[in-house]
Amino acid sequence: MLIIGELINTSRKAVKPAVEQRDAAFIQDLAKKQVEAGAHYVDVNCGTMVYNEVETMEWLVNTVQEAVSAPLCLDTPRAEAMEAGLAAAKNGQTMVNSITAEKERFEKVLPMVLKYKAKVIALCMGDNGIPNSAEERITIVRQLIRDLTAAGVAEDDIYLDPLITPISTGEKFGLDVLETVRFIRQEHPRVHAACGLSNISFGLPNRKILNQAFMIQTMAAGMDAYILDPLDKAMMGFVYASQALVGQDSFCMGYLNAHRKGLYE
Amino acid sequence: MLIIGELINTSRKAVKPAVEQRDAAFIQDLAKKQVEAGAHYVDVNCGTMVYNEVETMEWLVNTVQEAVSAPLCLDTPRAEAMEAGLAAAKNGQTMVNSITAEKERFEKVLPMVLKYKAKVIALCMGDNGIPNSAEERITIVRQLIRDLTAAGVAEDDIYLDPLITPISTGEKFGLDVLETVRFIRQEHPRVHAACGLSNISFGLPNRKILNQAFMIQTMAAGMDAYILDPLDKAMMGFVYASQALVGQDSFCMGYLNAHRKGLYE
Repeated sequence: MLIIGELINTSRKAVKPAVEQRDAAFIQDLAKKQVEAGAHYVDVNCGTMVYNEVETMEWLVNTVQEAVSAPLCLDTPRAEAMEAGLAAAKNGQTMVNSITAEKERFEKVLPMVLKYKAKVIALCMGDNGIPNSAEERITIVRQLIRDLTAAGVAEDDIYLDPLITPISTGEKFGLDVLETVRFIRQEHPRVHAACGLSNISFGLPNRKILNQAFMIQTMAAGMDAYILDPLDKAMMGFVYASQALVGQDSFCMGYLNAHRKGLYE
Repeated sequence: MLIIGELINTSRKAVKPAVEQRDAAFIQDLAKKQVEAGAHYVDVNCGTMVYNEVETMEWLVNTVQEAVSAPLCLDTPRAEAMEAGLAAAKNGQTMVNSITAEKERFEKVLPMVLKYKAKVIALCMGDNGIPNSAEERITIVRQLIRDLTAAGVAEDDIYLDPLITPISTGEKFGLDVLETVRFIRQEHPRVHAACGLSNISFGLPNRKILNQAFMIQTMAAGMDAYILDPLDKAMMGFVYASQALVGQDSFCMGYLNAHRKGLYE
């Protein structure tokens, strides 16, 4: 299981001014806390800084790396910011977040993934927009795996994101994702599946229980990477509990150790 | 989704003295609260009353029926107590909890299921004891469905309980249950699957998150009945959330209505 800590994101109210003011201590504290809480990767997203995203990305990467040795997940749709982040990143194998099956974006991002031997989150979106069924997702999954591996990306470096759409907008949108993940797990066992969780509950009350339930459902279907808040002890409790229940935690040692360390509630 | 409220059970500390003292108001309050909280069936279990279980079962059935119109789930391994309960029960279609594939128990319980046209929870246990794999469970599932339907029990009246064993005693015990439920759902779509949740977490800390996660996993696999505490608002929240996420709640109306009524947190 791979946990990508999502908190360093300038769309978050507390983070934006800290980044604008180049408050390294704040950012480094946030990076450390996430790694201590169980994050394997630290996501860095400064997509709201439209006028100086490149410079900000570079600063963030350097700042985070002074504080933690965990690798970074660079989260931006802009090629220039991605390139600047990749050039600065040196904590192990960086993760590119994300490539898609859209022709232009695929062609822009792929060379960077290869040049920096990065892991890559591949979002199930093609030139026809957001897929509307499991079938459409699976078609894009096949295309992404085919094109990425043909270009030389190792299967183990690919993290397919099935693209989560709100359950409030279609009652089968959760099932579509589960079916897509099961397809990946069965047909491409060495390829990973990743997602963020908050989209699923958009527009509904008491979002956290929907996000938690969806994490548990997708993990049982074979999802093995999540972009989430590792400081959310309730969510992390369900991560450890789910891992134990799906046979990925011998003698429940991970669950028991995390319990002793107080990593969940 | 069928919720069977589990609270009227003399193995619970608060219930035992109430039953011994024939405190009808206490029992009726517990029955009413469970139904108001979303229970479709009210489980009645006085298995600890070894010296007068028959008389106690009869009293409990009559007492609960004075308070609620929901049907009862009679929970006892003793044929005499089951018969007494069935004879007294008149709130709709009673549920027998449970029959097994053990030859002697099957032959004793089946005639009562037929005589009273009851629904029946069929526990995946045969004369070789507790099954140790999904394969062993599926063999018993096949046998139970074959023998029950051959005797005239409708598929829709059968609730197979895959028999939950603690994840602390075997890391694949959760997966075995999920595989059994998927088999039932695929091969026998009209037969139901039911279980209690607390066995899965036996021997581990923070049991509630394991029980909640296992409910969510099993529902995504196709489980459609749970014996649980409907007054546990956290658990009920996950029931409503899971139903919405697996496409069983058009426009999330069940989730939204339960939220407005304050049935979960």
